[in-house]
Amino acid sequence: MTDDLGAIRCQVWQLLQEGASDRTSAARHIVLATVGRTGGAEARTVILRRAQQRIAALEFHTDRASEKVAEIEIHPYGTVLLWEPETALQVRLRVMLSVRKGTEAEWGRIPAPSRFAYGGQPPSGQRIVNPGAVSLLQEPERFAVIEARIEEIETLHLATQPHRRALFRRADDFTGAWLAP
Amino acid sequence: MTDDLGAIRCQVWQLLQEGASDRTSAARHIVLATVGRTGGAEARTVILRRAQQRIAALEFHTDRASEKVAEIEIHPYGTVLLWEPETALQVRLRVMLSVRKGTEAEWGRIPAPSRFAYGGQPPSGQRIVNPGAVSLLQEPERFAVIEARIEEIETLHLATQPHRRALFRRADDFTGAWLAP
Repeated sequence: MTDDLGAIRCQVWQLLQEGASDRTSAARHIVLATVGRTGGAEARTVILRRAQQRIAALEFHTDRASEKVAEIEIHPYGTVLLWEPETALQVRLRVMLSVRKGTEAEWGRIPAPSRFAYGGQPPSGQRIVNPGAVSLLQEPERFAVIEARIEEIETLHLATQPHRRALFRRADDFTGAWLAP
Repeated sequence: MTDDLGAIRCQVWQLLQEGASDRTSAARHIVLATVGRTGGAEARTVILRRAQQRIAALEFHTDRASEKVAEIEIHPYGTVLLWEPETALQVRLRVMLSVRKGTEAEWGRIPAPSRFAYGGQPPSGQRIVNPGAVSLLQEPERFAVIEARIEEIETLHLATQPHRRALFRRADDFTGAWLAP
């Protein structure tokens, strides 16, 4: 299967769809790397909320006041990284990022205790004098959705020797090509 | 323990030292994010090879011909990210990266089968016609060490409510301060 480009592409989308729907999936918590406001690379773990193969796009939820929103508005090109231990598969997705306001329907589907992730004072990353010096608030106007349009999918299977590296580009309709590992 | 800055700093260094010495550690495979040659953020999983608290620095091994070496030579500021599931701790390390030639002593400590990671034609990332169209070679002159000088350690503990976020900066001798989570 690691020698069939179509099967690899299928495996990636199965993994992403599983991540978006199953809390125990290896693709639930994935890494989002962006370019920081001072020019270096930043990375953090995010939760995969939606994966749509038809338009090759992913969605994450975030607080509008978070640093990554400010970063994306300046530098929209980033990478989403995930690792699937069972088949020793690394997936790198080169993405174009944008941020939109979350809809009322999306807000309605968030469990009540989780809504504190969107809001609060002071906003994330500000200095505070002790860890309790924060007000937890649910602020729907700070609930935002990061949309990641996938430009390239790069896979690396480590279970075979030589390793298998493949690249699927939007510009080629994600048909796929082999790269030296 | 998540309310004691000194204890958190200690936990981070224990985790990093364990990652550098123990193949089964959560900190063995960590994420290195860099700025790519076309200006977007890149990320990949790397193996932590060395962690030195005294100088607050980490080391990774790489093929001199790899894309990340070219990226680091242009944009040296990156992030190292790790996630420790047992205590629900995310660690973000903002680092200044540099690349040096591996020493003969370092090469000598690499198990023989692993030496194929340093060398081979064509180099990683070049187009090939099928996954077998690569020559595996051990080339000590392509064995390089990435040094990561830690400028900032940012921790986020998710197990408590409110979450605990702290920042330790080299400029402050890593004494630590609280940030809004």
